[in-house]
Amino acid sequence: MERERTLEAVKIGLLGLGTVGSGVVRVLSRNNEEIARRAGRAINIVRAATRDLSVRRDCDLGGIALTDRAQDVIDDPEIDIVVELIGGTGIAREMVIRAIDQSKHVVTANKALIALHGNEIFARASERGVTVAFEAAVGGGIPVIKAIREALAGNRIEWLAGIINGTGNFILSEMRDKGRDFEDVLSEAQSLGYAEADPTFDVEGIDAAHKLTILASIAFGIPLQFDKVYTEGITRITREDVQYAAELGYRIKHLGIARRREHGIELRVHPTLIPHRRLIANVDGVMNAVLVRADAVGPTLYYGPGAGAEPTASAVVADLVDVTRALTVDPNNRVPHLAFQPDALIDVPVLDIGEAVTAYYLHLRVQDKPGVLAEITRILGDSSISIEAVLQRPPEEDASDAAIVIVTAPIRESNMDEAIRRIQDLETTSEHVTRIRLENLK
Amino acid sequence: MERERTLEAVKIGLLGLGTVGSGVVRVLSRNNEEIARRAGRAINIVRAATRDLSVRRDCDLGGIALTDRAQDVIDDPEIDIVVELIGGTGIAREMVIRAIDQSKHVVTANKALIALHGNEIFARASERGVTVAFEAAVGGGIPVIKAIREALAGNRIEWLAGIINGTGNFILSEMRDKGRDFEDVLSEAQSLGYAEADPTFDVEGIDAAHKLTILASIAFGIPLQFDKVYTEGITRITREDVQYAAELGYRIKHLGIARRREHGIELRVHPTLIPHRRLIANVDGVMNAVLVRADAVGPTLYYGPGAGAEPTASAVVADLVDVTRALTVDPNNRVPHLAFQPDALIDVPVLDIGEAVTAYYLHLRVQDKPGVLAEITRILGDSSISIEAVLQRPPEEDASDAAIVIVTAPIRESNMDEAIRRIQDLETTSEHVTRIRLENLK
Repeated sequence: MERERTLEAVKIGLLGLGTVGSGVVRVLSRNNEEIARRAGRAINIVRAATRDLSVRRDCDLGGIALTDRAQDVIDDPEIDIVVELIGGTGIAREMVIRAIDQSKHVVTANKALIALHGNEIFARASERGVTVAFEAAVGGGIPVIKAIREALAGNRIEWLAGIINGTGNFILSEMRDKGRDFEDVLSEAQSLGYAEADPTFDVEGIDAAHKLTILASIAFGIPLQFDKVYTEGITRITREDVQYAAELGYRIKHLGIARRREHGIELRVHPTLIPHRRLIANVDGVMNAVLVRADAVGPTLYYGPGAGAEPTASAVVADLVDVTRALTVDPNNRVPHLAFQPDALIDVPVLDIGEAVTAYYLHLRVQDKPGVLAEITRILGDSSISIEAVLQRPPEEDASDAAIVIVTAPIRESNMDEAIRRIQDLETTSEHVTRIRLENLK
Repeated sequence: MERERTLEAVKIGLLGLGTVGSGVVRVLSRNNEEIARRAGRAINIVRAATRDLSVRRDCDLGGIALTDRAQDVIDDPEIDIVVELIGGTGIAREMVIRAIDQSKHVVTANKALIALHGNEIFARASERGVTVAFEAAVGGGIPVIKAIREALAGNRIEWLAGIINGTGNFILSEMRDKGRDFEDVLSEAQSLGYAEADPTFDVEGIDAAHKLTILASIAFGIPLQFDKVYTEGITRITREDVQYAAELGYRIKHLGIARRREHGIELRVHPTLIPHRRLIANVDGVMNAVLVRADAVGPTLYYGPGAGAEPTASAVVADLVDVTRALTVDPNNRVPHLAFQPDALIDVPVLDIGEAVTAYYLHLRVQDKPGVLAEITRILGDSSISIEAVLQRPPEEDASDAAIVIVTAPIRESNMDEAIRRIQDLETTSEHVTRIRLENLK
């Protein structure tokens, strides 16, 4: 069965010519031959839509018909696959649905779109027998969707934990390496272009929550449910907490965590102390990594650049090659959008954060009086919270209060809430107790 | 297009019921429902062959017809896919070819078989329109074959470097962490079952060379050519070298390295100093990791357990799911065995080790006389070798010679060979200069 070299080039329509769009044009052009040697046929962008045709792009648009109307690209009967790189959930959603309705396959890098409207989009795509591929939506160029969805297909996945926002990780890495403050590093990240002018999506964990929503769905076979993710940002992490964590042998990372528990799934994004010897604790700067624990394989980790024009383009092109191969394949034999067959998704409840079980790092200021630590440890004991480590420093010269740092064993979050309330009510402690969750990730 | 739930179970024939074979039986049985929810149909082992039917296995063989004749499994017309877990290149090769000739798909974990006979096997499989899948052959449960072959399809791969032998990495990790000697750790590894009674394959790098052969082929689109791999083991690494490397900010890892150069490909397995801040430098114990540098995505790393019953079974089952999906797919639309279409492989020459370019760590003993270092640095300068770091210690009490450690900039290996010959000829240096290659992996 010799392969025939007569296959026509696959024709791609591109929506959006921003940073990532230009990256896709560059990569498909530069590596055109290498890609065809793999895919067995060329993959060419023949038409692209952009809002403003007059802007100069960071790529060669030769051979690509340009338009400012996205629907013209979608409606072009020549186009086999539509690549959506508009972003957001407005026009992007409309255009993806339009493409599906015209039985076009779609490749997208749009995490918000998938996290918020994926259930609807995939149902519609299945009805039409087309694929919507979204490797670039999580972890940029890291093939973590493919790994979880295909490579771990023999496993029951127990949990996953990911550094899935490069901006947040850059800020936390700088705070630790250089002893800098959050605000100071954020400004630098903004001037370097790592952080947006409005950094809310990144530093408040919304971007990470989009990605965690997607990862959890393909890991556990549950529908996408962004609104159930507990989300806490890194804006209140102080230089002191970073330093205390280091002294105790931990690093603080902004993690997205999804864990299968007996009665449901934990879905949470928050700053997390992790032992400094874990590989994922050593993922620094804008890099991303996802650690997955599964029953047969044990731990596997996937690391790489989580954003950027060409890393994201790398994932988009990989999807294009996969979709190209699947063009003539019976839809029932394709990899399901959410890893599990649509009729095999299970609606396991997502647990309230109060039901989560984790260890904690507590940092509080207490009056420099005898018996204060005893009061605190008694309250923790009353709530069945075991103490794993304590760090108490003598008060600084002339100060009337001192810092106490406590690391606890894992406990139900609602127990910890109650204990913290009681500690904050003590006359000898300051009103605010800093609480950062801690995971061993073993 | 609703999917029909009428698909019959896929029937698997298993050759070999050793550690990995039993693991595959356990995983397919334990996760049968989870796997079917993903694959859209059940995957069941219906027949298995083992040399000795009387041995008790570490799995439940209920529902599996046993035989001591592998050919009976292959010849069974009910069997869709044959899983080869016999190992070695004798009977295993015969049986894989027999299966292909009967148009059965094959899944194997056999790295020696693929590295040595893959070209022949894949050619035969292509003729017959069947797939031979081998994810488990490299990196155990880490989906590194899938990542390179599919997820990086948009990239031109520049180089890859892997810790792809768990035994070797365990030994080097212990030597560093506990300051122990090679022989001492090797004995322990043997008693723990991490190392074979005959550890040659692991510690001399042959196992790693098999795996590197496979990785290089799918990364660069070249035929498998095990006999061209330069292979050096870890048996001569001393505790002192591990410690000097640490003092200079490096760790010693046994790496398989494949690098694209202007006039060919470097393929080499050897102990390597790498900067301790690189993520891969922190992969310890029996764990494996492969770092890949590609033009669009940049660096990505894949980490996990490189061996063991269930990690390997995880990769075997992932292949089974992939092959199940591809059963009715036109062979031309399947992922090619070696990532590139068979008629698109390119016979780029593999470079002789003398043409490799790397940095070096040199460790030699010199007489405690004035001018010795000057003589050595002059020789290095004559060969255009730049020095990056020098460590010279005062001789120990009553000793007449002292240690000098030198780190060089990258240089052609043949230049270094010549310089080392001249240094060894000096009257003031001992006859043996230890040379360990050094890579920045940036």
